[in-house]
Amino acid sequence: MKYRGKVIVTLKPGVFDPQGVTIRNALHTLSFREVEEVKAGKYLEIILESENRSQAEKRIQEMCDQLLSNPVIESYSYQLEEIKN
Amino acid sequence: MKYRGKVIVTLKPGVFDPQGVTIRNALHTLSFREVEEVKAGKYLEIILESENRSQAEKRIQEMCDQLLSNPVIESYSYQLEEIKN
Repeated sequence: MKYRGKVIVTLKPGVFDPQGVTIRNALHTLSFREVEEVKAGKYLEIILESENRSQAEKRIQEMCDQLLSNPVIESYSYQLEEIKN
Repeated sequence: MKYRGKVIVTLKPGVFDPQGVTIRNALHTLSFREVEEVKAGKYLEIILESENRSQAEKRIQEMCDQLLSNPVIESYSYQLEEIKN
C-alpha cells in the first residue's frame, strides 16, 4: 500500500522565530496592518510504501524524530492518507 | 474578531524540488528505504484581526498572492479558524 504523509514542523512555543518576525514586518510594510503574529514552519509531503496504516504512522514518526524535526526546539504533527491507484 | 490562518505553500507539479530530493536521500541513508518521494514546502501560521470570516479569507489570499507565495512556481492552500478568547 502507498501512503502520503503530510508533516508540519513548527517551533515550540517560546522559541525565537526570526523568520516569522521578518514575514510579519514585511506584511506590515505591504499594509497588512491587521497581522498580529506570524509563525514560520516547514511542510513536508512524504510518499512511502508500507504494509498497513499503523506501520506507515510508526515510520513517519521515526522520520520526524530522527531527521525531519529537531525535538529540542520543534514539534511536529502529521496526517496520513492512503493513495489509491 | 481574531483569526488564525494556517497556510501551506508548495511547489507546483513539475517544478524541481532540490530540498525534497535531499531529504529523500537523507531518509534513504537512514534506512527509510520505503520513501519514494519527498516534497518540501512552507507552513505559515498567521494571527490576524478581521471583521468577519470572509474578510479574513480575502486578506489571507491577498497576502499569499503578494508575499507568501511565488505564483509562478508555487501554489498555496489555507485553513482559517476563529480564535475564541
